Amino acid sequence: MRMVDIIIKKRDGHELSDEEIRFFVKGYVDGSIPEYQASAFNMAVLFKGMTNKEISTLTDAMEHSGATMDLSRITGVKVDKHSTGGVGDKTSLVLGPMVAACGAMLAKMSGRGLGHTGGTLDKLESIPGMNISVSEEDFIKQVNEIGIAIIGQTQSLVPADKKLYALRDVTGTVESIPLIASSVMSKKLASGSDTILLDVTFGEGAFMKNIDSARVLARTMVDIGNSLGRDTRAVLSDMNEPLGFAVGNALEVKEAIEALHGRGPKDLMELCYTCGAIMLEQAKIVNSHEEGLEMLRLAISEGKAFDKFVAFVKAQGGDVEYILHPEKFELAKHIVSVISEKEGYISKINALEIGESAMRLGAGRATLNDTIDMASGIVLTKKVGDYVNKGDVLCYIHTNKDEYQSIIKDILNAYIFKKEEVETHPVVHEIVR
Amino acid sequence: MRMVDIIIKKRDGHELSDEEIRFFVKGYVDGSIPEYQASAFNMAVLFKGMTNKEISTLTDAMEHSGATMDLSRITGVKVDKHSTGGVGDKTSLVLGPMVAACGAMLAKMSGRGLGHTGGTLDKLESIPGMNISVSEEDFIKQVNEIGIAIIGQTQSLVPADKKLYALRDVTGTVESIPLIASSVMSKKLASGSDTILLDVTFGEGAFMKNIDSARVLARTMVDIGNSLGRDTRAVLSDMNEPLGFAVGNALEVKEAIEALHGRGPKDLMELCYTCGAIMLEQAKIVNSHEEGLEMLRLAISEGKAFDKFVAFVKAQGGDVEYILHPEKFELAKHIVSVISEKEGYISKINALEIGESAMRLGAGRATLNDTIDMASGIVLTKKVGDYVNKGDVLCYIHTNKDEYQSIIKDILNAYIFKKEEVETHPVVHEIVR
Repeated sequence: MRMVDIIIKKRDGHELSDEEIRFFVKGYVDGSIPEYQASAFNMAVLFKGMTNKEISTLTDAMEHSGATMDLSRITGVKVDKHSTGGVGDKTSLVLGPMVAACGAMLAKMSGRGLGHTGGTLDKLESIPGMNISVSEEDFIKQVNEIGIAIIGQTQSLVPADKKLYALRDVTGTVESIPLIASSVMSKKLASGSDTILLDVTFGEGAFMKNIDSARVLARTMVDIGNSLGRDTRAVLSDMNEPLGFAVGNALEVKEAIEALHGRGPKDLMELCYTCGAIMLEQAKIVNSHEEGLEMLRLAISEGKAFDKFVAFVKAQGGDVEYILHPEKFELAKHIVSVISEKEGYISKINALEIGESAMRLGAGRATLNDTIDMASGIVLTKKVGDYVNKGDVLCYIHTNKDEYQSIIKDILNAYIFKKEEVETHPVVHEIVR
Repeated sequence: MRMVDIIIKKRDGHELSDEEIRFFVKGYVDGSIPEYQASAFNMAVLFKGMTNKEISTLTDAMEHSGATMDLSRITGVKVDKHSTGGVGDKTSLVLGPMVAACGAMLAKMSGRGLGHTGGTLDKLESIPGMNISVSEEDFIKQVNEIGIAIIGQTQSLVPADKKLYALRDVTGTVESIPLIASSVMSKKLASGSDTILLDVTFGEGAFMKNIDSARVLARTMVDIGNSLGRDTRAVLSDMNEPLGFAVGNALEVKEAIEALHGRGPKDLMELCYTCGAIMLEQAKIVNSHEEGLEMLRLAISEGKAFDKFVAFVKAQGGDVEYILHPEKFELAKHIVSVISEKEGYISKINALEIGESAMRLGAGRATLNDTIDMASGIVLTKKVGDYVNKGDVLCYIHTNKDEYQSIIKDILNAYIFKKEEVETHPVVHEIVR
C-alpha cells in the first residue's frame, strides 16, 4: 500500500477502505508517512469530503493511535461535554458543577486555548493553587468522591490528532467537516466517558460560519459517536455575540461564580440549563428535558451547584477563599471604559473581534509559548438587542498593558447598530440527537 | 505575507497576486516554506486551477529561481522541442539532426527518464563514449560549429521545478495543468532557445488522457511562451500505441539511425516531418509548412540528416562506428518472440503497458537510483491497423533477465483486437499556435 495512491484515490472522489484509512493514521503517527503527504491528503479530503463510514473509521483509528482512558472504576454514568469554540465561553465552569450536583459524573479532560482567550484549563488556573495535572488514580478517586474533576489532556492520548491538528493549522485545512469531526470525536472517545454532549457554535467567529454547516458538523459527530457506542447529542448555539458579559480568564471565573449563585447572564444560563438537562437525560437521572431543567434550577437555587464548585476547587488544590470572596481576584492595572460613538440598537457584537482584542489585551496566546495575563480581558455592559446612546459605556477593558488605544478602536468596530429594534433569539437554536 | 493565507486564498478559488506567487516560489526554494505547505498548495491548485496570468507568473518565477542559459553567442535562430512523454519516443534523435541539417540551431538540454523507458539522455548514452555532461563553453562552441548539441540539464537551472516535481510525484498532484505547464515551460524558457515546439501527447499512457485536456494544456503552454516573448507552438499527438517499433534505449537508437536513412516507421517519420517543418518555420528558414517538409525530405534523401547525426555523436565523444555499423550494438542475452493467442485487427496497443513491461525487462528505472540495461526492451512487429493471425509474432522482447514469462503475459494484455478493419489516424491530430 502506498500513501500516494491513497491520496490520488481520495483526490478522485472515491471512498477509502478501512485498511487505507488505518494505514494513513498509523503511518503518519509512526513517521513513515511524511507531513507533506498528510497535508496533500488533508486538502484532498477538504475538497472531496468523506462518507460517514470513512469518518467513523478515521475517528476510530485516531482514537486508538495512543492510550485511551478507562473510567470503568468510576461508578455512575460518566458524562462529557465539548464546545467547538466560543468567545466568553465559561460554560464548563458552571455546567460541570450543576450536573455534578444532580448526580452525573463529570470526568473531563480539557484543553488550553490558542488565539482568542484561554481554554477551560487556563481559566481554572486563574484560581490560585488550582492544579490541573492530576494523576489518573487521583482523577478517578476525585470523580468518585465529589462527582467532578477537570484536568489537562494526558499527552499520550490521541497523538494522531495532536500531529494532524498542528499540520492543518498551517496548511489551510482546518475548515473540513470530516477532519473537524474526527479530531473532536477521537479526543472525546479516547477520554472514556459514557455520553457526549457537543456544543457546536456558529457565526463569524466560529469554525462554522452558518447554521447549515453547523448542522452538518453536529449531525456527523452525533452519528460517529452513536455508531461507536456512545450516547452522543449536540446543540447548535449562536456566536452572534460573546457568551455572557465577561471575556478573559479570571473575569470569566468571577462571572461563573455569579452564575452559580443564580445571577448569571441570560444567554449563559440558558445554554447551561439546556445543556445540563440534556446531560441529565443522557445520564438517565431524569426522564424528560423538563424534569432536568427543574432539577438544575433547584441545584442553583438551593446552592448545591455552588457548593459543588467549591468542593471541586478544593479537591484540586485551589484556594476556595477566592471562590467565596471573588473580590480577592487581583484586578488589572488599567480598567478603561469603551464609549460608544454611535447610537441605536446593537444588532451584533463580532465575537471574533472581541476575542482577538481580549487576546491583545493579554487574555490569550498568539503562539503556544505565550503566557496569559489572567486579570486582563473585556467586560461587556450591553448585549445584542440593547439600545445605546452616544457616550454610553459599551464595555470595559481590563489590561496591564499601557498601549491599548488601537485595541479600543477595534472593539468599537465589533459593534453593529440598527435604528430599528432588534429581535433577539435564544442562544441554542436546535438540539441534534 | 504568510504561506497559509496564500494556500487558503487559492483553496477558496481566488486569483493570487504576482507577489504571492513569487513569495511561494522563492520561499519554497530557499527552504523557508516547508514541503507540507507546498504540497497543500499544489493540491489546492489541482482543484481550483490558475488563471493564465497566474500560470505565467508562476512559470516566470520558476524560470528565474536559478541560473538561466544565455545562448546569445550562438549565431542563428535557436530552436527547441519538448515532448510531454511518449513510449518509444526517439523523435529528438531523428528530428534534431534533420532540422540542424536544414540550418536551424538545436541547443538542447534534455532529461533522464523515470518509469517507462529512458529519456533522450539515456538513449544517447547507449552509444559507447557519448558524453552528455558538456561545459557551457563547449556546448555553445559545438552548436555554432555543427548546429546541434544535446546535453544534460545543468543542476543550477530551475531548482524550483526540481523540488516541486519530486514533491508532486509523491503527493498525487502530477495531473494539474497549471503545474505541468509551468514545470515544462520554466525549464524550456530557462534553457534559452528562441523558439519552442511542444509535442503534447494524449492517450492512456500520457499525462493527458484525452485530446480535450491535451488541447487545454497545449493552449496554456503556447500562451505562456508567447506572453514571455518566445515563439511557442505545439502539436497534439496520439499515444494510442508506442511510437515506431522499438522501445528501449539502444533499440531506439538503432531505429533512429534507420529513420535517418529514410527507412523509419511511418508514424515516427510523420511526427518528425511535421515537427521539423514547424521548427523550420519558427526559425524563419522556410516560409511555409510545405517548403519545410520539402527541405526535410531532401535532408533525409541526400543523407545530410544522417551525416549531421554522425557529426553530433562524434562531437560529443561517441563512437561513430556504432552509428555507421549499428550491428555493433551488443544484443541482450534473450530475444524472445511474443506470439498472439488471438486474431483480428489490432485496434490499440496500450503504450503504458508496453513501456512498463520494457522497464521491467531492464530498459527503464523504477527509482532514480536504478541503472538501465541499454540492450533490453521490446521491438514491435505489428502496429495498430495490422491484421494478426493466432500464432503470429506480435513483438520481440530483448532482455538479460531470465524471468520474463509474467512480462510476456502483460504484453499480450496490451493488445486489443477487433473483427472489423481498423481505421488508422495520423499521429499528429492538431497543430496549436
